[in-house]
Amino acid sequence: MSGPHISPTIADLRAQVKDWRRQGLSVAMVPTMGALHEGHLSLMREALSRADRCIVSIFVNPAQFAPTEDLDKYPRQLERDIERLAEVGVQLAFTPTPAEIYPAGFATKVSVAGPSAGLETDFRPHFFEGVATVVTKLLLQAAPDCAVFGQKDYQQLCVVQQLCRDLDIPVEIIGAPTVRDEHGLAMSSRNAYLDEAQLTTARKLNVILRTASSAISRGADPEQEAAKAGQALLDAGFRSVDYVAARESGSLGPWQPSAEGRLLVAAWLGSTRLIDNVEIAAVA
Amino acid sequence: MSGPHISPTIADLRAQVKDWRRQGLSVAMVPTMGALHEGHLSLMREALSRADRCIVSIFVNPAQFAPTEDLDKYPRQLERDIERLAEVGVQLAFTPTPAEIYPAGFATKVSVAGPSAGLETDFRPHFFEGVATVVTKLLLQAAPDCAVFGQKDYQQLCVVQQLCRDLDIPVEIIGAPTVRDEHGLAMSSRNAYLDEAQLTTARKLNVILRTASSAISRGADPEQEAAKAGQALLDAGFRSVDYVAARESGSLGPWQPSAEGRLLVAAWLGSTRLIDNVEIAAVA
Repeated sequence: MSGPHISPTIADLRAQVKDWRRQGLSVAMVPTMGALHEGHLSLMREALSRADRCIVSIFVNPAQFAPTEDLDKYPRQLERDIERLAEVGVQLAFTPTPAEIYPAGFATKVSVAGPSAGLETDFRPHFFEGVATVVTKLLLQAAPDCAVFGQKDYQQLCVVQQLCRDLDIPVEIIGAPTVRDEHGLAMSSRNAYLDEAQLTTARKLNVILRTASSAISRGADPEQEAAKAGQALLDAGFRSVDYVAARESGSLGPWQPSAEGRLLVAAWLGSTRLIDNVEIAAVA
Repeated sequence: MSGPHISPTIADLRAQVKDWRRQGLSVAMVPTMGALHEGHLSLMREALSRADRCIVSIFVNPAQFAPTEDLDKYPRQLERDIERLAEVGVQLAFTPTPAEIYPAGFATKVSVAGPSAGLETDFRPHFFEGVATVVTKLLLQAAPDCAVFGQKDYQQLCVVQQLCRDLDIPVEIIGAPTVRDEHGLAMSSRNAYLDEAQLTTARKLNVILRTASSAISRGADPEQEAAKAGQALLDAGFRSVDYVAARESGSLGPWQPSAEGRLLVAAWLGSTRLIDNVEIAAVA
């Protein structure tokens, strides 16, 4: 098992991709912030099923963290991450420094309205601007045929799809299903912050969400069900709930009973913020 | 003399470029808003000297006009423009509709700080956001090896260079010299709005600018010289002066006597706004 080629610079990344293109190979990309878990690995397997070569970027993007957030303590474990890429058979790890991505004098921002309205933006106002800017850069640096993002960060997936459509970035964006542990807890790098008792509580998040989603797709009022789910989270031991909200899939506009929807949540366990989401089937 | 291929859609443009790439041909682009004059043609000649094929986009971009500006009366003369492309030997005219560029639900903006600060932005606050967004799209639609912009719109050229560097758009941006009539008046589509008397006044703009630039590069105070030039414009018959300002070349930061600079002006003749700029040689 040979490990991936490691490109710390854009120039090296581009040289590698150019070489693949010369050989007629297709290329997929999985942008990550490292601290790789089974959820990330499933994105890479999806990528490898769609293209001849897979690039995984590992970059903890300062632009998407607010000054009060966990940029400094965000888990970094490059050596272990590279081992996991080798296990899955990823061919290239792009591991730029912050200065490689944001050189002195950097001055450009990409912002997306539409699906970025509300939800995460109400609590992390500059988050999607940071995400949109770095994703634009990564996609233009690597120029893959497709890129795979997790449905776990569903609003982010919708923002990235909108962005690529709007800016005519020639790439197919694929949303891959959330990987969960045997109790339904969505895999997340931030789960590493949780102690045993918090983990037990965290596992109730998805159960509560699925209960509400089923009720909504059987015709219950989405706002009432969201409110009930929020209360159930507090009762289960969550410290606070940022939002529980039903939205239309894709656009994230107001939910329509006749269309596929998504029920999204963000809630706090101690000082750890967890997010999750599930489908709402269209009301028959 | 056969005319250019005309692509009204992104899909047709991309098919044509793909075909050229398959033949190993290099591609240059000149983004325009049509109403083509000798200045534009010089950009196309520059483009054709650098690449095998030249694409000219003709798109009056609504996003860079404020509601009070001249979007509706901006000169449109597609048939004549296409004839001029044929004269120069341009191979492709990209002529999208506004709906092709901004389909329903469009929600993304590209904004550039740095060189967009002040000057035009003080008077047209959303201008460069409109320019940056459409230029990003056009460059990603056509994917040329290089794109040629006029130094006439010097601040725009600096913003586009910053944008492409920051977003890693794989294209070389070339700034081509301003074409002037025999009296020194910079070619501009908006010159078509001027009557004979205004044209006579307009021709003094560049003379006044060059006088100030020479004085500054001989050691005179740039703010004083800019103020004197502003007064000279009013004395010559300009209705008002938005700015006359000395800046560092490229960054458009504060002008330094030891570096190359640029003296930039925007001034009104009746209801027509003219801009121009000249180099300031470094003080020896």
